[in-house]
Amino acid sequence: MQVARVIGTVTATVKESRLAAYPLLLVQFEDGSGEPAGTPIVAADMLGAGVGQKVLVTTGSASRVPPALQGIPADAAIVGIIDTVTVEDPD
Amino acid sequence: MQVARVIGTVTATVKESRLAAYPLLLVQFEDGSGEPAGTPIVAADMLGAGVGQKVLVTTGSASRVPPALQGIPADAAIVGIIDTVTVEDPD
Amino acid sequence: MQVARVIGTVTATVKESRLAAYPLLLVQFEDGSGEPAGTPIVAADMLGAGVGQKVLVTTGSASRVPPALQGIPADAAIVGIIDTVTVEDPD
Amino acid sequence: MQVARVIGTVTATVKESRLAAYPLLLVQFEDGSGEPAGTPIVAADMLGAGVGQKVLVTTGSASRVPPALQGIPADAAIVGIIDTVTVEDPD
Amino acid sequence: MQVARVIGTVTATVKESRLAAYPLLLVQFEDGSGEPAGTPIVAADMLGAGVGQKVLVTTGSASRVPPALQGIPADAAIVGIIDTVTVEDPD
Repeated sequence: MQVARVIGTVTATVKESRLAAYPLLLVQFEDGSGEPAGTPIVAADMLGAGVGQKVLVTTGSASRVPPALQGIPADAAIVGIIDTVTVEDPD
Repeated sequence: MQVARVIGTVTATVKESRLAAYPLLLVQFEDGSGEPAGTPIVAADMLGAGVGQKVLVTTGSASRVPPALQGIPADAAIVGIIDTVTVEDPD
Repeated sequence: MQVARVIGTVTATVKESRLAAYPLLLVQFEDGSGEPAGTPIVAADMLGAGVGQKVLVTTGSASRVPPALQGIPADAAIVGIIDTVTVEDPD
Repeated sequence: MQVARVIGTVTATVKESRLAAYPLLLVQFEDGSGEPAGTPIVAADMLGAGVGQKVLVTTGSASRVPPALQGIPADAAIVGIIDTVTVEDPD
Repeated sequence: MQVARVIGTVTATVKESRLAAYPLLLVQFEDGSGEPAGTPIVAADMLGAGVGQKVLVTTGSASRVPPALQGIPADAAIVGIIDTVTVEDPD
């Protein structure tokens, strides 16, 4: 999983029908210091996360493990809204 | 999932037979500012996307979750045609 | 799998319910010389690893192979606490 | 999937027995301009591709979707021999 | 799959019990010229590979396709000991 920040939203009127069940949020992975890392991806959100919030993103087949997300063609999902990240030895 | 732009097409007369069911499009991932990121990949398209359109691409086993794509050896599929990407804090 | 060091912890009150079963640890992959490599990720820990320990991290669907982790939407898990890494030809 | 060029072959007398069913080819991913991108990988070939040919490579669990490749521990397979790649907006 | 060289070993007394079945080897991916590429990873070895040998490594769910490795939480496995890599057009 990855620590990420929600930085935006994606809308798509034409889409695989099951993707309509959840908001599609643009998330930016962050490193141990909270700096952006890599290219933003789009995650399905089943927790009601808002733009600016720090979230926990799971990727790959794990995205379809929560019962609510089974049968949805998502390869990334928000599975937590992060309260704190405590880093003892950031690099 | 990734925000991407369709930049071309791929034709292959000799191919795994099930790949014949859908067009194979060359897609370029984009970052939060719409700039290209990484090497283009080839995605199966079940939505009739055209070159130049901004699309939502899913990767890995998620590509074979839509019933229409089950049994197709694709590791990337276009699952949405994007209307808008709203970024509040692009990096 | 990857050699990694536990560098921190992540707390998320709001999360997919099954993620509550295990601590979520921030882990930093390391190269053959013990230097950090890439962006830290978050792994589910079923072994009681502590910050500072060197661990073995598995990713992807392998994270849900241990019976204890089945049904948990994790894409990374700590599956070993490393005693020694012996490198004959580090790069 | 990826556009790639076959650049070589790999032989391994000692190997998981099911890998003996297909040639193992070294393939180099290419970007939209036909330039090499990233480190070459090894793909199972069920189409009789030859060195120098441009091919379509699928990765991950998709490699084991074709009936001919089920039960083979491959994470990459050649699923098409490319006739043409038409790029309208290469980057 | 990837061409790699075995560069070391990893020992972990505390580990997911099924990982005890096979040695855990540190492997370094190589490019077409035999130069190291990327960060070394840890692969389960069911072929008796030794340090210094050139091997074929499969990753992801493919690692658990060989019957001997089913139920083992590995995301990388050595599935061949390479005799030769013949590159016609290394980059």
